[in-house]
Amino acid sequence: MTATTSNASGLNHFDAEGQAWMVDVGHKQATHRKAVAHGSIALSSATFAALKNPKEASPKGDVLGIARIAAIQGAKQTSSLIPLCHPLPLTHLNVAFTLDDSAYRVHIHVTAQTVGKTGVEMEALTGASIGLLTIYDMLKAIDKGMVIEQVRLLEKEGGKSGDWKAITP
Amino acid sequence: MTATTSNASGLNHFDAEGQAWMVDVGHKQATHRKAVAHGSIALSSATFAALKNPKEASPKGDVLGIARIAAIQGAKQTSSLIPLCHPLPLTHLNVAFTLDDSAYRVHIHVTAQTVGKTGVEMEALTGASIGLLTIYDMLKAIDKGMVIEQVRLLEKEGGKSGDWKAITP
Amino acid sequence: MTATTSNASGLNHFDAEGQAWMVDVGHKQATHRKAVAHGSIALSSATFAALKNPKEASPKGDVLGIARIAAIQGAKQTSSLIPLCHPLPLTHLNVAFTLDDSAYRVHIHVTAQTVGKTGVEMEALTGASIGLLTIYDMLKAIDKGMVIEQVRLLEKEGGKSGDWKAITP
Amino acid sequence: MTATTSNASGLNHFDAEGQAWMVDVGHKQATHRKAVAHGSIALSSATFAALKNPKEASPKGDVLGIARIAAIQGAKQTSSLIPLCHPLPLTHLNVAFTLDDSAYRVHIHVTAQTVGKTGVEMEALTGASIGLLTIYDMLKAIDKGMVIEQVRLLEKEGGKSGDWKAITP
Amino acid sequence: MTATTSNASGLNHFDAEGQAWMVDVGHKQATHRKAVAHGSIALSSATFAALKNPKEASPKGDVLGIARIAAIQGAKQTSSLIPLCHPLPLTHLNVAFTLDDSAYRVHIHVTAQTVGKTGVEMEALTGASIGLLTIYDMLKAIDKGMVIEQVRLLEKEGGKSGDWKAITP
Amino acid sequence: MTATTSNASGLNHFDAEGQAWMVDVGHKQATHRKAVAHGSIALSSATFAALKNPKEASPKGDVLGIARIAAIQGAKQTSSLIPLCHPLPLTHLNVAFTLDDSAYRVHIHVTAQTVGKTGVEMEALTGASIGLLTIYDMLKAIDKGMVIEQVRLLEKEGGKSGDWKAITP
Repeated sequence: MTATTSNASGLNHFDAEGQAWMVDVGHKQATHRKAVAHGSIALSSATFAALKNPKEASPKGDVLGIARIAAIQGAKQTSSLIPLCHPLPLTHLNVAFTLDDSAYRVHIHVTAQTVGKTGVEMEALTGASIGLLTIYDMLKAIDKGMVIEQVRLLEKEGGKSGDWKAITP
Repeated sequence: MTATTSNASGLNHFDAEGQAWMVDVGHKQATHRKAVAHGSIALSSATFAALKNPKEASPKGDVLGIARIAAIQGAKQTSSLIPLCHPLPLTHLNVAFTLDDSAYRVHIHVTAQTVGKTGVEMEALTGASIGLLTIYDMLKAIDKGMVIEQVRLLEKEGGKSGDWKAITP
Repeated sequence: MTATTSNASGLNHFDAEGQAWMVDVGHKQATHRKAVAHGSIALSSATFAALKNPKEASPKGDVLGIARIAAIQGAKQTSSLIPLCHPLPLTHLNVAFTLDDSAYRVHIHVTAQTVGKTGVEMEALTGASIGLLTIYDMLKAIDKGMVIEQVRLLEKEGGKSGDWKAITP
Repeated sequence: MTATTSNASGLNHFDAEGQAWMVDVGHKQATHRKAVAHGSIALSSATFAALKNPKEASPKGDVLGIARIAAIQGAKQTSSLIPLCHPLPLTHLNVAFTLDDSAYRVHIHVTAQTVGKTGVEMEALTGASIGLLTIYDMLKAIDKGMVIEQVRLLEKEGGKSGDWKAITP
Repeated sequence: MTATTSNASGLNHFDAEGQAWMVDVGHKQATHRKAVAHGSIALSSATFAALKNPKEASPKGDVLGIARIAAIQGAKQTSSLIPLCHPLPLTHLNVAFTLDDSAYRVHIHVTAQTVGKTGVEMEALTGASIGLLTIYDMLKAIDKGMVIEQVRLLEKEGGKSGDWKAITP
Repeated sequence: MTATTSNASGLNHFDAEGQAWMVDVGHKQATHRKAVAHGSIALSSATFAALKNPKEASPKGDVLGIARIAAIQGAKQTSSLIPLCHPLPLTHLNVAFTLDDSAYRVHIHVTAQTVGKTGVEMEALTGASIGLLTIYDMLKAIDKGMVIEQVRLLEKEGGKSGDWKAITP
C-alpha cells in the first residue's frame, strides 16, 4: 500500500495499483530547488494600448502590479489547487512582465525557489497562470477575446532528476 | 470615493481616481449567467500515448478524472485567486475533455453558470487553467516540455453587456 | 455536455456520459433548507473523566467550546472540502454537545440552515465531523484510541425532494 | 436548540444556553448593506519619508497599491477568519488611503457593500486591518516600531438595526 | 505565559493557566512520522450495488476516485480545520479503499507521513473523514441514511511518545 | 531579475527594479525565531461590564475563548493574507488576554515561534488583529463604537537582524 516506487507506466502520481497518491518524498534530501515558468497573453491592439497608456487618472502599471501580487499569492496556494502537489515553503518568488509592442502581448516570467524535498515547477506555473488570468480579468471590460498562450516551464534546477531547460523556439 | 461609474479609460476595475477596487454591482439584477472557457495542453507523442494507454495496472482516464476535480475545485476558488473578482455562488460547473490524436493535445472545456449580479467568465477560465495545470503535474515525470495553450473564453450569456461569442477557430 | 438531467444510474453527481460535474441547480427555487447531523466519539473512562473534570487550572468546557468553533468554521468550508458541493451562504449554524456518562461518549448535533437552491446536509455533516476530530485532537495526549462513530444525517427539511428523517436509533 | 432570539445578556452570538452559534438570519430580508471602516498606522518620520519618496528605481505608490489589494482580498476572507461571521457575497469594496504629512500617519478607509441578510461591518474592519498589516510588513525592514491605531467602524447603513455613525473625531 | 510544559490535567493543548494554545514544539527533533487512520461508511444494499455496478455510461470507480482526491486535499487542509494543529509539510499521503460485499460497507485507509516536529495523526484522520463525507455526498441522491462509522487511528510511528497500535477487534 | 540584495530604498519587498517580490530567503539559516505582538480594544463601560459579567446562562469567558481560537487560526493564515509573506510552519502560538478594569480595555498578547528562515512578526501581529476583530464581532450587538488600538510588535528574537524590543509604554 505504501511502496515508494512508481508504477510501470512511469507516472509517479499513481501507486503500484494505479491509484492516485501524493508520492512519498520523505526519503529525499531537502536541497535547493528553482523553477522558471513563462506564459503570455495576446491582446487586441486597442487593449494593448489601454494597458500601456491608461488615461491620466490612472497610475501606470497598476494592471501589472495587481497581476504580480495575484501571481505571488496564487503560487503560494499551489498545493491547495493541484491535488497531488506536496505543500512546501517557498523561499523566493519573483514575477516579471515584459511587453511585446509589435505582437501586442504581455509576457510573464515567474521564478520560484525553495529548499525542500520536491521541485517548485508547479508553483512557478501556477503563479504564471494566475497572473495572466488576473490581467484578463482587469482588461475584459474592453475585450473578452484575449488569449492566454504558451504557459510552460522554461527551466528547473535541483533535485534528483537534475537540471532541465526547455528547447526554445 | 464610491462613485459607481468606471473611469475614463474604460477599465472598470479602477475607480475615478485610477485606484483598483471591486466594482459596485449592488444595483445590478441577479440574472442567469453562463460562460464557456477552453484551453489545451500540447504533449509529446510519448506522453500522449502514456495518457491514452496507461499500463494495465492503471485505470484508464485517472489523469483526466483528477484534472476534472481540480478544475471544479479551482473554479470555486476564483474569487480568492483573482483579486478583483466578486464572490458568487456557482450553480453549475461542467468540465469536458477531448483528445486530439493527431496533434497530441488534450482540450478542456469548462462551463460555469450562476444566477447572480456578475458574470462567470473568470470562474470558467480559472477552472480551465487549473485543470490543465493538473494534467501537467501528473504527467511531468514523463515530460516537462508540455505547453498549456489557448486558454480563452468561447462564449458568455447574460448580464448587461449581453451575449458574446469568440471568433473562431 | 450541459444536460440538466442526471444519468441512468441515479447518481446525479455524474452527467449523461458518466463524468463528474457540479450538478446544475440554476433552475431550482431558492427555498428555506435545514439539515441536522449527528455524530459521537467514544472515549475511555479515564479520558471521559478528564474531559468532564479538568483540574482546577483549566476552565470547564474548553475542549467542547473549541470543538464548537471548529465545527462552525469547518461547516463554512464545506464547498472547498467536498469536491462536488455547491457553495452556498449559510444563514444559521448551531452546534450542541451532550455527554453520555454511562457510555463515555460525547454526542454532537449540528443544525445548518440556508435559503438557497441546494440542501445543507453536507454542511451539517462536515461540521459534525470537524467538531469530533477537534475533540480527538485535544484529548489525544491522554488516549489515541478514541473512535468517531455514527456520523449521519438525522433530518432534512426543504427542497424538491422534501423532508426526510432518519429511522432511529 | 435553535431558538432565534438572542440570550438574556444581549450578546446575540450566544444562544439561550449561552453557547456560541452562528445566529439565524434566515428570516431576515436581503437588503442593501453598507459599512465604512477606518484605521491608521503611525510611522517614524524616516519611514514616512521612504513611503512618500521611494528612490527612483521604485514606482510610486507600490506599498499602498499592494496594501489595497491585500485589503480587498482580506475582506473577502472575513467569514473564514471571524468564527461567527456569516458568509456573504460582497457586491462592492473600495479602499482609499490618505497620508497625514504632519503626523506621519497613513489612513485607510474601507467601504464594503452587499445585498444580504447581515451587515458588512466585519468585512470593512477586516479589510482595514489586513491593509494596515500589509503596510507594516512592507516597511518593517526600515522600522519595526510602527503602530496600527484606531481601527473602527465609521458608519453603517441598512439592516434592522438601522443606520449608525461613529461619534467623531 | 509561554511555559513549555503541559498543565496538570495532562491535556497539552492547554497551558498552565488552562488556556488553549498551539503547544510549543520548537525544541522537538524533526523526525520521520507516520500515521494510519481508518474509517468506514455503511450503505444500503441498493446503494452499495449502485456504487459497485454503475450503469455502462459511468466509468467504474469514479465515486471512489473522487473521494480519494478529496481525502488527499482534505488532509492537506488539516491545520486550517483543526484549531490547535501545527501546520506541517506532508511528505506522503496514500488513500486506499476496500469494499465489504457482505456488510455493504466501504472502508478507507489513509496513510500520512512527514519529517517533522509533530505527528500526523490528525492529517490521516481528517483525510479519512473528508473521504467518507465525499462518498456520502456523491451517493446521497440514492440514500440519505448512510452512516459514517469507526473513524479512528490504527497506528502511528515516530515522535517522543513512540509507536502506537490500536487494539483491534 | 533574481538578485538577492534589496533595492536602494531599503525596502526589501521590492527588487532592484522596484517591483514587488517575495524576497529570497533560501540562503538564510533556519534558526529559532520568536515575536510578541500586542493590541487592545477599547469598550464602553456597559460593553465591558457585559464581557466581564455575562448573565448566568452564559459561561464566563466565552468571548475571549473564541477570540483566542480565532487569533490562533488567523495567525496560521498569515502568508495567505499578507501578500509578500513567506509561508512558514509555526512551532508555537500563545494568546493571552488581560482586562483593564479602569480603562475598559481588553489587551491581547500573541507570542509566535518557529524554527525557520524568516521571522514571525507578521504571524504575531495578524493573530492579534484577528483576535481583536473577533471580540468586536461578538460584542457589536451591544456597541458598534469599540475601537481597536495599538496593534504593534513588542519584541522579536532571532534572525540576522537580531533581537528587538519596542520602546514602551
